[in-house]
Amino acid sequence: MIINMAVNATEEQIDHVVKRIQECGFQAHLSRGEERAVIGVVGKSEKHRGELEALQAAPGVEEIIRITHPFKLASRNFRPEGSVIELGKGVTIGGTEIVAAAGPCAVESAAQIGEIAEKVARAGAKLLRGGAFKPRSSPYSFQGLGGEGLKLMRAAADDNGLLVVSEVMDPSQIDVMLPYVDVLQVGARNMQNYYLLRALGEIQKPVLLKRGMSATIEELLLSAEYIMAGGNYNVILCERGIRTFDTYMRNTMDIAAIPVIKQLSHLPVVADPSHGTGRRDKVGAMARAAVAAGADGLLIEVHQDPERALSDGAQSLYPDQFAQLMAEARMIAPAVGRRIAEEKAHKRVAV
Amino acid sequence: MIINMAVNATEEQIDHVVKRIQECGFQAHLSRGEERAVIGVVGKSEKHRGELEALQAAPGVEEIIRITHPFKLASRNFRPEGSVIELGKGVTIGGTEIVAAAGPCAVESAAQIGEIAEKVARAGAKLLRGGAFKPRSSPYSFQGLGGEGLKLMRAAADDNGLLVVSEVMDPSQIDVMLPYVDVLQVGARNMQNYYLLRALGEIQKPVLLKRGMSATIEELLLSAEYIMAGGNYNVILCERGIRTFDTYMRNTMDIAAIPVIKQLSHLPVVADPSHGTGRRDKVGAMARAAVAAGADGLLIEVHQDPERALSDGAQSLYPDQFAQLMAEARMIAPAVGRRIAEEKAHKRVAV
Amino acid sequence: MIINMAVNATEEQIDHVVKRIQECGFQAHLSRGEERAVIGVVGKSEKHRGELEALQAAPGVEEIIRITHPFKLASRNFRPEGSVIELGKGVTIGGTEIVAAAGPCAVESAAQIGEIAEKVARAGAKLLRGGAFKPRSSPYSFQGLGGEGLKLMRAAADDNGLLVVSEVMDPSQIDVMLPYVDVLQVGARNMQNYYLLRALGEIQKPVLLKRGMSATIEELLLSAEYIMAGGNYNVILCERGIRTFDTYMRNTMDIAAIPVIKQLSHLPVVADPSHGTGRRDKVGAMARAAVAAGADGLLIEVHQDPERALSDGAQSLYPDQFAQLMAEARMIAPAVGRRIAEEKAHKRVAV
Amino acid sequence: MIINMAVNATEEQIDHVVKRIQECGFQAHLSRGEERAVIGVVGKSEKHRGELEALQAAPGVEEIIRITHPFKLASRNFRPEGSVIELGKGVTIGGTEIVAAAGPCAVESAAQIGEIAEKVARAGAKLLRGGAFKPRSSPYSFQGLGGEGLKLMRAAADDNGLLVVSEVMDPSQIDVMLPYVDVLQVGARNMQNYYLLRALGEIQKPVLLKRGMSATIEELLLSAEYIMAGGNYNVILCERGIRTFDTYMRNTMDIAAIPVIKQLSHLPVVADPSHGTGRRDKVGAMARAAVAAGADGLLIEVHQDPERALSDGAQSLYPDQFAQLMAEARMIAPAVGRRIAEEKAHKRVAV
Repeated sequence: MIINMAVNATEEQIDHVVKRIQECGFQAHLSRGEERAVIGVVGKSEKHRGELEALQAAPGVEEIIRITHPFKLASRNFRPEGSVIELGKGVTIGGTEIVAAAGPCAVESAAQIGEIAEKVARAGAKLLRGGAFKPRSSPYSFQGLGGEGLKLMRAAADDNGLLVVSEVMDPSQIDVMLPYVDVLQVGARNMQNYYLLRALGEIQKPVLLKRGMSATIEELLLSAEYIMAGGNYNVILCERGIRTFDTYMRNTMDIAAIPVIKQLSHLPVVADPSHGTGRRDKVGAMARAAVAAGADGLLIEVHQDPERALSDGAQSLYPDQFAQLMAEARMIAPAVGRRIAEEKAHKRVAV
Repeated sequence: MIINMAVNATEEQIDHVVKRIQECGFQAHLSRGEERAVIGVVGKSEKHRGELEALQAAPGVEEIIRITHPFKLASRNFRPEGSVIELGKGVTIGGTEIVAAAGPCAVESAAQIGEIAEKVARAGAKLLRGGAFKPRSSPYSFQGLGGEGLKLMRAAADDNGLLVVSEVMDPSQIDVMLPYVDVLQVGARNMQNYYLLRALGEIQKPVLLKRGMSATIEELLLSAEYIMAGGNYNVILCERGIRTFDTYMRNTMDIAAIPVIKQLSHLPVVADPSHGTGRRDKVGAMARAAVAAGADGLLIEVHQDPERALSDGAQSLYPDQFAQLMAEARMIAPAVGRRIAEEKAHKRVAV
Repeated sequence: MIINMAVNATEEQIDHVVKRIQECGFQAHLSRGEERAVIGVVGKSEKHRGELEALQAAPGVEEIIRITHPFKLASRNFRPEGSVIELGKGVTIGGTEIVAAAGPCAVESAAQIGEIAEKVARAGAKLLRGGAFKPRSSPYSFQGLGGEGLKLMRAAADDNGLLVVSEVMDPSQIDVMLPYVDVLQVGARNMQNYYLLRALGEIQKPVLLKRGMSATIEELLLSAEYIMAGGNYNVILCERGIRTFDTYMRNTMDIAAIPVIKQLSHLPVVADPSHGTGRRDKVGAMARAAVAAGADGLLIEVHQDPERALSDGAQSLYPDQFAQLMAEARMIAPAVGRRIAEEKAHKRVAV
Repeated sequence: MIINMAVNATEEQIDHVVKRIQECGFQAHLSRGEERAVIGVVGKSEKHRGELEALQAAPGVEEIIRITHPFKLASRNFRPEGSVIELGKGVTIGGTEIVAAAGPCAVESAAQIGEIAEKVARAGAKLLRGGAFKPRSSPYSFQGLGGEGLKLMRAAADDNGLLVVSEVMDPSQIDVMLPYVDVLQVGARNMQNYYLLRALGEIQKPVLLKRGMSATIEELLLSAEYIMAGGNYNVILCERGIRTFDTYMRNTMDIAAIPVIKQLSHLPVVADPSHGTGRRDKVGAMARAAVAAGADGLLIEVHQDPERALSDGAQSLYPDQFAQLMAEARMIAPAVGRRIAEEKAHKRVAV
């Protein structure tokens, strides 16, 4: 930490800051330039860090500059070679293969989820995504099928050799979900729901943590740290669009966050161009861009009849569009030294 | 809802949209301009609203324009005269008097909270604010005193004729908190934690709902709607700064949100310039601005020794600064037809 | 400047950075913490500053942290007591009196500008504002009356004892405008039009410089520096709303920028709540907030028939609303130790 | 245009709005829903459009919704097949081939620009980029070599079979630049400098128009419209990053803007990942993403010794990195049905 004193700071003010640093259990290195004094703070006392930060408003202080990242376990330095996380059934994320999760916004019926599961599996997806508990901004919207939805999704996934990823909204749902899902997803609105994050730190099931709508990358990594600090290191990060002044799309997809996260952290990162754009006709372009920028995976909404979907129909791809997207992504992957699973032979053997 | 067809939409595409509107149980009013067709949608079928919205991506559709607010109970139309909410001990918010809540970021000890309570009460505050359960972005920061903190705060408030407002982070805390607090605060990071909102709808205790860091005003009102839809109409809204490109301050305080919320909703709105600025030396200016813009209340962090505060020291006022702020606000209130409680006589009788 | 080396930076990388700093003519102070090395850079060689900044991408460098402001003449340190700028006819800005400029978005006719001038003068305005050259985002919109508009505005101002402020869009207009205006306004879209800024540095007429839609306060002060570096120190800054994710209003007025600018710079700062909100019914609240936050002046659009105004009708006040706004601002000013000119006696002597 | 009346609008208010619409020369179509009245406005009278917009603040009006784009010549409807623009020497942009422009931020010397030109030409670039007139946010930074820089760049380009693109900052520079450049670039800070745009409409030389830091796509297209309305249809648009809350990078590159612009407009669009990221190590990933998303070209800063570059060194690629970027982009192009010029044989014949 560096404390940048104001140009007109008095000796008394400088002394006060130095003294407070020492009282908090840190060392203070004072260096005087022609224009101003700068004080370096060295040490590790977590206990008094809050007091140190309060010096920001001390008389004569211009600003406090943090020079270390506040996350440790999520940091690239913690595991420089990068994490490869096992999801089950031999599928891993973070390695050479780019992994796709696809499926509807919400599970609606056995027939719906069964048909979609078959089609996305055939196109090369490894996970089936779908919501059983839905976070809806209006209390009057469809809120999901709950436990029944989980069962339908599990069955559809098993029938097609897929894994299951689904959103958890509250600690009370974790036990209900564990038997049915392979990856627990934390939605953007809950990225800083620390009760939920802490509870997810106590299990070992992989967690897919979505970036909040206006979260910085550091905040995203701090939320990952909450989970990891509890002992669960199986965290996958997800860029799903941020909120900016531009309102043409539902969100502005921050494609650059992908290489930035890969640099700052060892955790795998996937892209969700469905929420990142909110418009079916832009999902393909942004999925390609994400792969070209180095994403470890894709999360794509697919529905066989988007106009009758109970939610997010406008951003759901038709199954054929998803297969097309996968084919394009497959062409791009080698440019970044990656590959994507092949499309399966057209006819699936009946179970 | 209005569906704006693209300039080059075909007759077939227009017919398809009209047919889908009718299938969803709404009426379609087609109107053809020189350049394009526009379709008005009339009706009330909540059930198929998701399908209607999916038409946004139908071929030939340029955009869907919503013309009704998605919130009802929170709308000004629901209670045009405005809500005046009773907080207890004869204190109300939303009426002529502007109400101040003040206190430390976190309760630290009986001595700390007792001294602050006495001083803010003397300066004219009606509520004591303070955190017992703290949402901290780092898992390594001080997380609050929990239940013990609640007891200390209640005692300090009662000793000084104050009410208590404190943050609830999870539904499991509600029962623990009810005996000790008069207002339950929902933090900005939990504004869209729907499990929590729903649980707060089932009690009658007033809820102070903070605007999320990048929430639109409509989203804030929809979160209020979640609480109100459960039957708890005692909701107070709070502007506490939004995230913008500007990083000089911790947040950009959206003062204009105050009159906008007052126009769109009947709910009272308070301002939190402590979090809105993050800097002690700017809290006063923004508190004055909030009062001048029509706020119903203020939420101010005050600490007797901010440099040794366990959290948010940099934005906490010294008690004297708070008294000064109240004096200035008292001068401004008449310009907007309001008033603020007088400062108490200087010597409090010892208990 | 401080160079923060990465945790895993090699000795060779550290040596390289130190060597480059010295080659650029600066001194390097290397300090090694437990976790990483930090290099302080001391010196004043403007010539090689660009090369220093390029070190940000050198191997082993995590980030470069600037600790001095890049503006000098605009800095509060340059003139700690604050600037009071003379505008003419005995009117000054930056002192105890808060100065209001009011008038239509565009000058439309002698009758229009004459009537408005009379009414705003009576309510206490000291300057008449109005556009002769209009920057319009569409090439098909009304572009202003040009030189003829300047003459009409000058005459209306002189008849009513007012000064004139009007926008300059290009260096070629300066000579045309000088005989008619007392303050030259630079619009938000031209805040970084360096050719224009430089040209304005070569005259002595006061310049009102509006903050760009997404300019940081530092960028605003650097643009002021462009003008001042040429020798014209008569610069007035203006907060007029920034662009954020919130679209309910035309812009988000950054009221906190007012006290921040007053702290960082000695230059006077005025607020433009007309552009800051874009809505007539919110102008009053934001004008009051600006005064409460310490603004040195107000810039308000007023039109006698806003529904027939050639531009910005939706945000123009009726003359009576302006008089009301001035009355409220007059009540608030003492809370910040300021005052505003009294309303004039109701009947103006006919000319 | 649609006028959405408030729920509690009176008959008198509705009548007033209808009457005003008719007075402005438009037709009003009133439609009454269960909850509110909605008024469709049909007609083409540009003259009174400003007055129509002022109705937004009329009593009883909730909002005005525009349903037509304000740009016409820049609209995709104007030329549905897309524009292919000839740049000279047989190079076109907007067709199948993706075109790269590369070079230093600023021209510094004959040796510098000559070496870079040779290297980028060999890697497959078609244009040499470089600044002679530099817009710098500080008046104390290097401002470019001016006319001398143009000559050096022209010579270096001609020696290597390249075209020249360089920034114009003021109408007075156009005549000076025309003999030396093939494409005139308008910088982000000047995107709404309407005097400059108008002047560029009067020539036929292609213009590369950069998106402003916080410009919406509609505003970018309106600025293109300014140039096209003057008769110059040779406009190329450029995405170069927008300003958001995220400060890890210099800007947030809005990759999704590329397919959005391609949908709304017929004009070619290029990407500038150098300014879009500000960091050398992220330029490659974002260039690949831009190609994958459908960009018609790339604008890349390249310098043979970035640590000694006079500006933007931190974001300039080494020539080898540029060649690598081109090789990767060449692999990606077929996934979007495009191609990129091959690398030239290694040894250039000496001139």
